[in-house]
Amino acid sequence: MDFLTEILGTEIKASIKYFKKREIIQKQGFVSKNGFYVKKGLIRSYSVDEKGKEHIFMFGAEEWIIADLESNVFNKPTQLYIETIEASEIVIFSLDYFNHDLSTKEKLQKNSILLTRRIGSLQRRVIQLMSSSAKQRYEMFLETYPLLPNRLPQKMIASYLGITPEALSKIRGER
Amino acid sequence: MDFLTEILGTEIKASIKYFKKREIIQKQGFVSKNGFYVKKGLIRSYSVDEKGKEHIFMFGAEEWIIADLESNVFNKPTQLYIETIEASEIVIFSLDYFNHDLSTKEKLQKNSILLTRRIGSLQRRVIQLMSSSAKQRYEMFLETYPLLPNRLPQKMIASYLGITPEALSKIRGER
Repeated sequence: MDFLTEILGTEIKASIKYFKKREIIQKQGFVSKNGFYVKKGLIRSYSVDEKGKEHIFMFGAEEWIIADLESNVFNKPTQLYIETIEASEIVIFSLDYFNHDLSTKEKLQKNSILLTRRIGSLQRRVIQLMSSSAKQRYEMFLETYPLLPNRLPQKMIASYLGITPEALSKIRGER
Repeated sequence: MDFLTEILGTEIKASIKYFKKREIIQKQGFVSKNGFYVKKGLIRSYSVDEKGKEHIFMFGAEEWIIADLESNVFNKPTQLYIETIEASEIVIFSLDYFNHDLSTKEKLQKNSILLTRRIGSLQRRVIQLMSSSAKQRYEMFLETYPLLPNRLPQKMIASYLGITPEALSKIRGER
């Protein structure tokens, strides 16, 4: 938990849980009070549209945090499911730190930097979804997740990119 | 500048500038060290793809802030142009507050809340772009910008939604 401790301090409530492959750890529609830090394994967050189709929002492998801060801070039901892709060791930590425990200026500043990084990555994702070709999106996916291509099924990468598995297969063939 | 002062404190460097309709106030490719608070008027931020097509990232009317925090904090060239849609009165403020002036715990906490709101709105935008129908996107546009539909040309709303002006016209007709 060294990485977490460094950012959030030692006083946060956290516990380690072990999940099998394909277990749901967060459900759409509930207020989310926890963050998930991947110690080992691979998880994904995704939304489900009104036709029941899944759209992958992000992946989280070792040392990534997935958390719906807005759901926690503003008590909104989360729009995202989280599910394990591989058997995973997850540190589940309370997002209460946001309101209470982040008591020093230094921790608040570190936290602001993390929040800003997140804003940057989301902004790039929006611009990507609006204005990039499928090929450019795949390049950005490789930059964001350099270690993941061989750990993910083709159809999940396609879902993240918002393209068909066939289109992805063509792009990979051309590289 | 009351709203700004409340969030950022009194010590931030800020100046008011007046722009005509359709003036560019930020260019893609440069590191952005300023935030823009709309006192009066209407602005938009947008990216331009490799074919020269524009994609509207967000609109800003009275009391909105448009700022590329990631560009400022991490010295990355911004991906976004900002342009006035109407003649506008803009408070241009230095984003240095992020590193220096946000000196109290209280201000850092207020800032964290603003950053979290931004994360929430970007997250919703990503999920919307991935998994919502054109009609749902238009509903969300109306929720986000209830006062703007009559101030914006049809083609700009369509660009924000990522649909054709014809598709937008059809949706508006059906409502």
